[in-house]
Amino acid sequence: METPENIIVCEDISADLKLFVQSNNYSKIAVLVDENTNQYCYPLISKDLPEHHLIKIQSGEEHKNIETCSDIWEEITHHSFDRNALFINLGGGVIGDMGGFCASTYKRGIDFINLPTTLLAQVDASIGGKLGIDFLGFKNHIGLFRQPEKIFVYSGFLKTLPQRELRSGFAEVIKHCLIADKVMFDEIKLLDLDKVNWDNIIPHSIAIKHSVVRDDPEERGLRKILNFGHTIGHAIESYFLNQKGNKLLHGEAVASGMICESWLSVKKTGLPEKDLNMISNFLKRVYNPELIQEADIDSIAALAVQDKKNDKGIIKCALLQQTGLCTYDQAITGDDIREAIQYYNDQIINN
Amino acid sequence: METPENIIVCEDISADLKLFVQSNNYSKIAVLVDENTNQYCYPLISKDLPEHHLIKIQSGEEHKNIETCSDIWEEITHHSFDRNALFINLGGGVIGDMGGFCASTYKRGIDFINLPTTLLAQVDASIGGKLGIDFLGFKNHIGLFRQPEKIFVYSGFLKTLPQRELRSGFAEVIKHCLIADKVMFDEIKLLDLDKVNWDNIIPHSIAIKHSVVRDDPEERGLRKILNFGHTIGHAIESYFLNQKGNKLLHGEAVASGMICESWLSVKKTGLPEKDLNMISNFLKRVYNPELIQEADIDSIAALAVQDKKNDKGIIKCALLQQTGLCTYDQAITGDDIREAIQYYNDQIINN
Repeated sequence: METPENIIVCEDISADLKLFVQSNNYSKIAVLVDENTNQYCYPLISKDLPEHHLIKIQSGEEHKNIETCSDIWEEITHHSFDRNALFINLGGGVIGDMGGFCASTYKRGIDFINLPTTLLAQVDASIGGKLGIDFLGFKNHIGLFRQPEKIFVYSGFLKTLPQRELRSGFAEVIKHCLIADKVMFDEIKLLDLDKVNWDNIIPHSIAIKHSVVRDDPEERGLRKILNFGHTIGHAIESYFLNQKGNKLLHGEAVASGMICESWLSVKKTGLPEKDLNMISNFLKRVYNPELIQEADIDSIAALAVQDKKNDKGIIKCALLQQTGLCTYDQAITGDDIREAIQYYNDQIINN
Repeated sequence: METPENIIVCEDISADLKLFVQSNNYSKIAVLVDENTNQYCYPLISKDLPEHHLIKIQSGEEHKNIETCSDIWEEITHHSFDRNALFINLGGGVIGDMGGFCASTYKRGIDFINLPTTLLAQVDASIGGKLGIDFLGFKNHIGLFRQPEKIFVYSGFLKTLPQRELRSGFAEVIKHCLIADKVMFDEIKLLDLDKVNWDNIIPHSIAIKHSVVRDDPEERGLRKILNFGHTIGHAIESYFLNQKGNKLLHGEAVASGMICESWLSVKKTGLPEKDLNMISNFLKRVYNPELIQEADIDSIAALAVQDKKNDKGIIKCALLQQTGLCTYDQAITGDDIREAIQYYNDQIINN
């Protein structure tokens, strides 16, 4: 599969970044970090960067909002950034989505590059030009499409990542296999997450995402298959984002969503029952997901109805026809979602 | 000159709008108005529109900010607008710029159309896809490029406009002639603003703007000629926006800016002195502009340095070579700006 032009898989991130910056003539440079990437990742690139401004924000989805954007815009304004400046996003999905949004709207758009530091961002969030922030509790509710100038993918950053974060990102690797590559799915089922050589996994996963996005950049059709697991996954994630405690990582919510939507795939699009069992068992083993309380199920279904991918109030979902083959725009109801979560709960109880 | 495809010059705005809405299958419709367009323009279109949500904001540049955007996003979220909704901007430049920005970023972009109700918006602001809001006192500091689906230009709206607003919009008509059409400039010099048939003027002015924007939509080069009068004009406008009293309309500030920049055109790009005198006298007669106090000149020059069109701290300006011929990327200094404002003041004193 093709590797996209604007993605550079790096052996030496510092050298590759230096080369890029030297070959462009930027007037100013900003590097956006959170407290984690400032501590663990920034030292790996700072030495070889020319003079730049470090912009620090707090980590976490709860800071991916318009107030943080205002802080970022204010900081680069005060440093007199003009249209020929460069904005570097050093972090995971939150940094990439929000930093890209800020750069794309500052003076109607300055160049930005992504240095994804999490597995999730490397195989998914940083690829495809979706930018945005959360609003009123809805994920990525305000945003736009715009491609970064370059994406530097460096697996060395993953060494600094907690195991739980790595496992969260692995959910998107699993998703890419489930929608497009059964052979690879059978391989990754055998992986031990403590001993993976990520350089064997990441380019393959990027290539799947890229080939889908290239054919449908603004999600008119095909790109919707990338939402497999996300209709219910997003609703679960949004719901727990607004609750005290119990925060779920994105990939953890998507793993639960993929169990639910695989069950819907049996009901609606002919996924064989044995594939469902295999997928469910694998995801349960890796993620050890938690029960969803009866009292929460209705709220989660209501959130799914408000999802931005819906069309005139009808919930449209990406569902599997086989392991490795996905279709989209499958109409489902609130009742379907409630039943799917019931199946999910049954699986956990019967574990 | 070519009339752009997505612009409809209307004789019957209500019928044309009805036809457009009927031939598209939008899930929901919002109409953005301020207190003026709600009173004077909305009644002209409301009868023939299907069910829709009216969103009211306060008029004026001082409300073109991120807080008003949040209010707008909140309102369409609460009405469960999905990606197949339509957003209608019924108003002048503020409504068009901000409403377009909100629509283009809501769920990563929904369709919007412009119904410009001021002369300024009809010949300039609604054409060309520049969207945005003010930030920290800088005009259009946050925004993006995106074309509306359609622009409905209806000169009937202008009957509801105060004379001062009409004269302000006329500054952009003058600018289009100065940068691209000497013959038309000689014609409009003879106009009596109380008796103009705008249907003879508006399509010509739109065609000039459109032909420039079509060749350079994201302002890499040629489009910069549309900034003639705006480097100093914007700085003057921004400066007085932050002062008590003394608010200038956009076109009034641009008229002052065109006097200053015509003087710079003599100094830098060979505009004949007699053309300068003719331009200055005409603009003074139409706009009767006010003196800029000595104490304010430095602040205005400083604002021009921060303008988003600048490149690495060098002020780049569009300047005239002849009446009807403009060039761009002419480097000027803070001293140039101060001298130009001095010339402008001398003209007013010697009036």
